[in-house]
Amino acid sequence: MTPAYDQDPAFALHRGGKLEVRSTVPVRDAGDLSLAYTPGVARVCTAIAETPSLADDYTWTSNVVAVITDGTAVLGLGDIGPAAAMPVMEGKALLFKEFGGVNAIPLCLACTDVDELVETVARLAPSFGGINLEDISAPRCFEIEDRLRDLLDIPVFHDDQHGTAIVVLAALRNAARLTGRTLGDLRAVVAGAGAAGVAVTRILLEAGIGDIAVADSKGLIYDGREGLNSVKQALARDTNKAGHTGSTEEALVGADVFVGLSGSTVTEQAIAAMAADSIVFALSNPTPEVLPEVAARHAAVVATGRSDFPNQINNVLAFPGVFRGALDVRATTITENMKVAAANALAAVVGDDLTAEYVIPSPFDERVAPAVTAAVAAQARADGVARKKD
Amino acid sequence: MTPAYDQDPAFALHRGGKLEVRSTVPVRDAGDLSLAYTPGVARVCTAIAETPSLADDYTWTSNVVAVITDGTAVLGLGDIGPAAAMPVMEGKALLFKEFGGVNAIPLCLACTDVDELVETVARLAPSFGGINLEDISAPRCFEIEDRLRDLLDIPVFHDDQHGTAIVVLAALRNAARLTGRTLGDLRAVVAGAGAAGVAVTRILLEAGIGDIAVADSKGLIYDGREGLNSVKQALARDTNKAGHTGSTEEALVGADVFVGLSGSTVTEQAIAAMAADSIVFALSNPTPEVLPEVAARHAAVVATGRSDFPNQINNVLAFPGVFRGALDVRATTITENMKVAAANALAAVVGDDLTAEYVIPSPFDERVAPAVTAAVAAQARADGVARKKD
Repeated sequence: MTPAYDQDPAFALHRGGKLEVRSTVPVRDAGDLSLAYTPGVARVCTAIAETPSLADDYTWTSNVVAVITDGTAVLGLGDIGPAAAMPVMEGKALLFKEFGGVNAIPLCLACTDVDELVETVARLAPSFGGINLEDISAPRCFEIEDRLRDLLDIPVFHDDQHGTAIVVLAALRNAARLTGRTLGDLRAVVAGAGAAGVAVTRILLEAGIGDIAVADSKGLIYDGREGLNSVKQALARDTNKAGHTGSTEEALVGADVFVGLSGSTVTEQAIAAMAADSIVFALSNPTPEVLPEVAARHAAVVATGRSDFPNQINNVLAFPGVFRGALDVRATTITENMKVAAANALAAVVGDDLTAEYVIPSPFDERVAPAVTAAVAAQARADGVARKKD
Repeated sequence: MTPAYDQDPAFALHRGGKLEVRSTVPVRDAGDLSLAYTPGVARVCTAIAETPSLADDYTWTSNVVAVITDGTAVLGLGDIGPAAAMPVMEGKALLFKEFGGVNAIPLCLACTDVDELVETVARLAPSFGGINLEDISAPRCFEIEDRLRDLLDIPVFHDDQHGTAIVVLAALRNAARLTGRTLGDLRAVVAGAGAAGVAVTRILLEAGIGDIAVADSKGLIYDGREGLNSVKQALARDTNKAGHTGSTEEALVGADVFVGLSGSTVTEQAIAAMAADSIVFALSNPTPEVLPEVAARHAAVVATGRSDFPNQINNVLAFPGVFRGALDVRATTITENMKVAAANALAAVVGDDLTAEYVIPSPFDERVAPAVTAAVAAQARADGVARKKD
């Protein structure tokens, strides 16, 4: 008898979980065991104790990433706790393997205090070549990532921030190119000041966007607004040169770019009031801020987070290649330059096939991960953060 | 060019590590992704948030064990730290999979404080169906395991203690049977009061050994000896009814059983002074306390920890089946009865083929893991610690 839940194909697929751990070496007889385990393994341990860098070559550590969450901001579901977050983390791990050849371990932690999360991840670090933080609520996610980046000598990457930022930058570069502009020509409005909104804003500033204004649930963020946390205070200083103080809709009048990362909605009138050749990325899932067919009446380029419309902004275009590239050269960190290089490589995959409905490749385009991998690895070397030199 | 290290076949085998993580579900197209990841995965997460027990069926958590060490007592190598411990933990993980079908994740932690280890493992617990503690130095290992057993509702099992204890009990049962005695007829001497020595002593007491005396590096442990830690004080109360106060050798005069778990040596004269039909388990690796060919001149049964002599006492005979059985019924703990049941099942595999050179099965005997699994699962149900009833 099929259990009731399994009549939903998503449940049927999840039965028993989505991952397994396997041996990559034979264990057929006592001879095999004497190499893979005692007594042979002792020689490898002794050598690593004497020369720690040998762990890179003779353990799996340098090819395994921890996918770590506290379950506080899972998809759009919010704070559902660590146990209920596991299906997403398993899914992330299988994407790491399928798209990047990266072994990844889902770890859902039973603590939410920032100090406890930082110390726990730091204690886990010797077993991993990199740390992918996932679905940790803002603003805690910013401090957690910053402190771990300072503490650890392996890449730490909060994918909700930087994965999204890399793919948005890639798509926006191509949208600008399609419409005959550069990033410096564009004035953008970002709805949402959570993990993704902040990181998208930061990477667009890094890449030279003309101007950018960010709105949270209380409206636009501007210098001097009351009650801003430290992350938003920093945003207020660096953004919104135009000095808008009202709603997202007000800022959209005459703007070139809208990036929705808020779960809110934007009216058709607001989209219609944008500048000519506007670019609309309505990225909330499952319901975009504005339906793409509505936005397309006014905008030159429309993207969403969904696979059933053109131009899907999907993090899987970035994180497998980012980590593959970082691990391949044993990068000690992921620099801002490496993220921008990933975005540029991703944008370049589109090449001469660029159209309004194709500003970003498909997640199943097999050119994507190798292109991102190569760009990230090369940039790590250029930035001097690659431990592996050859 | 083969790197110099790789001329050693153990290093060649370890290149790139010994494990990988793989997807067990297809990820060929957008349809697959929409079930294994967003949006389909959200329905599974939501259901688990509402009904936590669904995590057993719809994640891999209930079939994955953490193999956790702090690197303080790795094989006979001592405190080599977490990074250098990884090859052993990877090896353990592959044995879990090959012999028990259990997914296992090696986690080498960068902390050695007891409180820090306990809290770190507790935070990791939501991601695992069981915790295998490994190569943590005594006496810290006892407190860490005790506290985690109290805190967590999943099995916590320090294999250096209980894996060894189970296999020793199994072999000793068969050795006693071969020589026409019961455990209650036997007086035993255990050399070594570390993790394995203490656990072997405890399980033999539980199983009804006649008398047992334990020696540490300072000689026999007896009630009233100065400077005993709390674990050894408890041992002193429960053991050594004969009241020996000298060396291992003195206690061996007329003893029936010697179990060596100390890395020390025992003279041929001491073995010769044991009772008729003596049983000698010289388990230190790679050098047994007494060479088996020497012991065999005097003893009826000899076992070692090595694969190149008969009667190898190897933990892999126990831990894969112990965890497989515990996970199959979703046991909340591993009781003393479950350990004894595992030992009895392991002993029973030998059956009528019992000889002095065959008191314990080979690690590659395919009957072992199923027998241990079934016994542990049945005992978990009998003890009322199985969450899964059918």
